[in-house]
Amino acid sequence: MNLYEKTIHSTSIYQGAIIDLEVHDVELPDGKTSKRELVYHNGAVAVCAVTPENKVLLVKQFRKPAEKPLLEIPAGKLEIDEVRTEAAKRELEEETGYIAEELELITEMYGSPGFSNEKISIYLAKDLKVGQMNLDDDEFIELEQYSLLEIKDMLKNKQFEDAKTIIALQYLLLNYNDYK
Amino acid sequence: MNLYEKTIHSTSIYQGAIIDLEVHDVELPDGKTSKRELVYHNGAVAVCAVTPENKVLLVKQFRKPAEKPLLEIPAGKLEIDEVRTEAAKRELEEETGYIAEELELITEMYGSPGFSNEKISIYLAKDLKVGQMNLDDDEFIELEQYSLLEIKDMLKNKQFEDAKTIIALQYLLLNYNDYK
Repeated sequence: MNLYEKTIHSTSIYQGAIIDLEVHDVELPDGKTSKRELVYHNGAVAVCAVTPENKVLLVKQFRKPAEKPLLEIPAGKLEIDEVRTEAAKRELEEETGYIAEELELITEMYGSPGFSNEKISIYLAKDLKVGQMNLDDDEFIELEQYSLLEIKDMLKNKQFEDAKTIIALQYLLLNYNDYK
Repeated sequence: MNLYEKTIHSTSIYQGAIIDLEVHDVELPDGKTSKRELVYHNGAVAVCAVTPENKVLLVKQFRKPAEKPLLEIPAGKLEIDEVRTEAAKRELEEETGYIAEELELITEMYGSPGFSNEKISIYLAKDLKVGQMNLDDDEFIELEQYSLLEIKDMLKNKQFEDAKTIIALQYLLLNYNDYK
């Protein structure tokens, strides 16, 4: 079956700093039409970083949509035309003060594919070196560090609510038996 | 540190069928102000279902924001005031033709917490019974079934791009050693 939905007409509703909103009239596989509300975002990167002391670096940050702080792996929006690995290294150093020489791609994922094209590249960083923490003026975050055993318990107790963070930490548990 | 961001003023930009868009002026922890673009969504449910033959049920569906079909666990939007487990059972039967008597909560997560409050509850369904597939008029999906060994390879090869699906399948690999 050809599942493709062709845009027949699109209307721009909003062009913002982080997201744009468009409504598309699409042609469905059976020839009928429907509407799609689409939130366009430039994409993001996230880094699961393990220190030389085998601690996972997490940042606590207030998330206005959730109306509470969430505990997440370091992450940030991609600038226009920015290389994803460079953005990941930049965000990691700015938010945690650690430099990652090498990044391994864990996966790339859509967090809300029903309405948004935001694609997040999640990396694993090991062999960290000490760099310089440097937060943006409007960035208020708390850095926390947890052992793999603590991470395992926190996952079991459903203490993480951010998709990219759950994916990265489950990946760590699945792939690094020596940490368990 | 108190990380809370208080809304001083909010503007409704768009009220749609699936999402609403608001822009809030917020007061930051240091007293300065900033803007937040917020996409409100009623939430969703998703079900990782394993058949009596130990096959994982996945659905392929065109996702307009990604401009391609994605392979995902069965999922759907929550209706207003709908109980999440009831919605999960409904979506599973409609999309796959299987009935789940019991659901185990894997986790609840925000896919895009930077700009959206969409919260997805992900369940694990076992002991499936045969029911009745029943797709909505504008729903075009293909049902596929994979063994746990195939799932393990597909995860390793980064073949999944949907966050809730990756979380559910990693959980399955982490928690069900007898399937490996």
